[in-house]
Amino acid sequence: MTGHPTDHPNDHAPTHPTDHAPTRPTDHAPTHPAAPTPTHPTGTDLHLDLPPHGSRRTALAQALREAVRGGRLAAGTRLPPYRSLAADLGVARGTVADAYAELVAEGWFTARQGSGTRVAEGMPVRPARPAPGPSAAPRAHRFDLTQGKPDPASFPRGAWSASARRALAGAPAEAFGPGDPRGRPELRRALAEYLARARGVRTDAEHIVVCAGFANGLRLLAGLRPRDWAVEAYGLPFHHGILAAAGVRPHAVPIDEDGARTDALPARARTALLTPAHQFPTGGPLLPGRRTAAVEWARATGGVILEDDYDGEFRYDRKPVGALQGLAPDQVVYAGSLSKSLSPALRLGWLVLPDALAAQVVAAKGLRESWTSAVDQLTFADFLDSGAYDRHVRRMRQRYRARRDHLATAVARRAPGVRVTGIAAGLHAVLELPPGTEAVTLAAARKAGLLLDGLSEYRHPSAAEDSREGLVVGYAGLGDRGFGEAVEVLAATLSTLHRGL
Amino acid sequence: MTGHPTDHPNDHAPTHPTDHAPTRPTDHAPTHPAAPTPTHPTGTDLHLDLPPHGSRRTALAQALREAVRGGRLAAGTRLPPYRSLAADLGVARGTVADAYAELVAEGWFTARQGSGTRVAEGMPVRPARPAPGPSAAPRAHRFDLTQGKPDPASFPRGAWSASARRALAGAPAEAFGPGDPRGRPELRRALAEYLARARGVRTDAEHIVVCAGFANGLRLLAGLRPRDWAVEAYGLPFHHGILAAAGVRPHAVPIDEDGARTDALPARARTALLTPAHQFPTGGPLLPGRRTAAVEWARATGGVILEDDYDGEFRYDRKPVGALQGLAPDQVVYAGSLSKSLSPALRLGWLVLPDALAAQVVAAKGLRESWTSAVDQLTFADFLDSGAYDRHVRRMRQRYRARRDHLATAVARRAPGVRVTGIAAGLHAVLELPPGTEAVTLAAARKAGLLLDGLSEYRHPSAAEDSREGLVVGYAGLGDRGFGEAVEVLAATLSTLHRGL
Repeated sequence: MTGHPTDHPNDHAPTHPTDHAPTRPTDHAPTHPAAPTPTHPTGTDLHLDLPPHGSRRTALAQALREAVRGGRLAAGTRLPPYRSLAADLGVARGTVADAYAELVAEGWFTARQGSGTRVAEGMPVRPARPAPGPSAAPRAHRFDLTQGKPDPASFPRGAWSASARRALAGAPAEAFGPGDPRGRPELRRALAEYLARARGVRTDAEHIVVCAGFANGLRLLAGLRPRDWAVEAYGLPFHHGILAAAGVRPHAVPIDEDGARTDALPARARTALLTPAHQFPTGGPLLPGRRTAAVEWARATGGVILEDDYDGEFRYDRKPVGALQGLAPDQVVYAGSLSKSLSPALRLGWLVLPDALAAQVVAAKGLRESWTSAVDQLTFADFLDSGAYDRHVRRMRQRYRARRDHLATAVARRAPGVRVTGIAAGLHAVLELPPGTEAVTLAAARKAGLLLDGLSEYRHPSAAEDSREGLVVGYAGLGDRGFGEAVEVLAATLSTLHRGL
Repeated sequence: MTGHPTDHPNDHAPTHPTDHAPTRPTDHAPTHPAAPTPTHPTGTDLHLDLPPHGSRRTALAQALREAVRGGRLAAGTRLPPYRSLAADLGVARGTVADAYAELVAEGWFTARQGSGTRVAEGMPVRPARPAPGPSAAPRAHRFDLTQGKPDPASFPRGAWSASARRALAGAPAEAFGPGDPRGRPELRRALAEYLARARGVRTDAEHIVVCAGFANGLRLLAGLRPRDWAVEAYGLPFHHGILAAAGVRPHAVPIDEDGARTDALPARARTALLTPAHQFPTGGPLLPGRRTAAVEWARATGGVILEDDYDGEFRYDRKPVGALQGLAPDQVVYAGSLSKSLSPALRLGWLVLPDALAAQVVAAKGLRESWTSAVDQLTFADFLDSGAYDRHVRRMRQRYRARRDHLATAVARRAPGVRVTGIAAGLHAVLELPPGTEAVTLAAARKAGLLLDGLSEYRHPSAAEDSREGLVVGYAGLGDRGFGEAVEVLAATLSTLHRGL
């Protein structure tokens, strides 16, 4: 930091009209004589490169801030007088006065009568700052076979864009004001119709509350329901974590071939989190007797079932399994989202609620919508109404079915002892493994470049007596080519370890 | 419920091939004799109107569900045999078998060998359900002058739509997968550039975390920071409520003509929530000495300032007041959102964070983005990069300035004793009232059809010694015509009550 002027000519009384600035920097005291070299008073190391267009004042203020930030104008440095810098830069003197005033108002500069404008003390000079904390470095893997993700490359960009254009053009002005916490009426109406048609849900727009995905709905309900919840012995650890953070006391319900043992739902629980269409992650539907038992439990205890219909649209071989909610709309909260069917990046989900809970959830959301974008809601309403959603789901169902067949065939051929289950629906399969082999299989798969989870990672901590082992393989998230290669690697790994089973 | 067959012919062994359904309903036992009238066994009151197009099975299953729901098929009712209903409806027998199987799987029907398929017990028949809870009935008013809302009719639909189209077309495929909790890199980069240019914020993309508006950011920070917070004596009750819900112990800092008394920030507080650009709602900027004092407090105590820059873009008469964050990026969290500048319906905001806090906030958000739509993020990034945001803000600044002038002029003419303050910036003004007159003025205004708030409603509960009174008038939310009428009504009301002041 050399070459800065510490003694230099001054402008005299400012000619710029007084404005509303809280503080106008005092220009240098008029008693100082003019300096001999007025044209370059700032030296050459104060490079104030102003862009050719736009407000001169804004550009100059920005350049001065940068000069302080970059350490080129040190604390205490006296700024050149208005006139000099104005001449230097080819701008009006008032422009310089304004820029100085702006930086004084912001605390960068100080202005004292008799001492001119100076760079304020205590502004730490900082180099470019490093990235905060650990960056989200990807785990070392070639293929991500973890479950829960649709193929991002299949997002229907054109159709979504067209829906967005129509929705934006046709929306009432109030749609761009503060949002109703229940969600946009256009979407709730379209959802009520779709869910009745496609999932057998019994509802109307008034009982639907839009939310930012299933997790958001789960958090809302965890804050409203009594503390004791029943959960399936296997489920998503992320959801278990949300319940734990909300102070929920979980009671794990065993799983068998017919789905969750809803005939054994604990009497003390008042809420049961279930995945009736496709038990997550083991993959079977909740069979009729179990459905009836769940509803009977809810009626007898005054409890509520939270039906997580996370992938109800994707059913391949067998007839669609309708929503449990249709049997007992007063006992079941139906929850769905776009995270599997379209994209988890949209953060759009919905709850279908019994009367009393609908009012409670709306109240818990507050006076205004805090999370969910009205533009996305309106776009999705158009996407539903135009039939684009049905078309997309149908297309993806075919694609995922082919993926599933590919996976099942490859495993059957290369590792015939490994049973592939839970494949009648959904975006993932479970590869059942003999006791004691999950860890070694996972290790081998990861070594081969596959990112995937073991079945035991989905077991609820309070269901320790259940000890099934396996791999949970998501077959939707990769592109077609990557998926083919990943299946090759997986089948080869299984073949080596489990050929003899 | 009369006329239903309880005794009728049976189909014999099902000809439909066995599929993967967990339970196939037993058709009626083949030992029953055929009935004499096989063509209309269901009577005329079971109206199963199938739509002309689409899957027959789906349509039939849906019609059957509706018949149970509507009470037309009572519990225990025996369903007609496949063949009869198939003939009745003109569909294949296998279609009826499939539809029955679907409803058995869902629990609507039961199937027992020898007793045929029947409507299950315990399915309550319900009429159309009433709307839940109290509906969001609008308060009785003609004009909404509450603050905090931009004009929803001015949302730039075309420009946003164009940005959405470009953003969707240009995004990488991974943008439609699970979201990074920090937000889209495209948006963080565009924001870093914009905030440096327009608000004097010192940052880079790595220190920005996207959130669903200021409230979302406040909740995140309230969960991370120590319990003692300093708040301004006047602020948004909604924010006070968020802090209270998070267990924060608030310490109100007095407000005077120079802004918050940051020279009196309590030493025990470790976080200070401030509105430096435009104190909310009283309207002044935090003056330079106070800015320095706030930064000094933060450095001395190891504390953090949360800078709520809620309307920093809207400054009319005076030069822009840059962000406090630019003075001390390690001590200040800068928070902004689209709620005032574009629309609260987008639910899009951002935090600019010091290193350590950035890592904490990202960790608190979790492994994936839970709230904010990636499509909106990408769209806003394009909206920024294309200059559309600058153009929109400039246009709205002109429009709101005209509104403000209109309001100030009308009040000065009709009620010259009422001082209009806080109008150098923002989307609202404060009309100062003599002690003891706020309640009666509010009552008169509301009686005249105006919805607006008293200044005292914004006073923090722990700042009871401050007793200023006034009206907080939002001048952005109404359309131009409505605003003109509302100002007429307001000025007339004030004239009647406060003419003599």
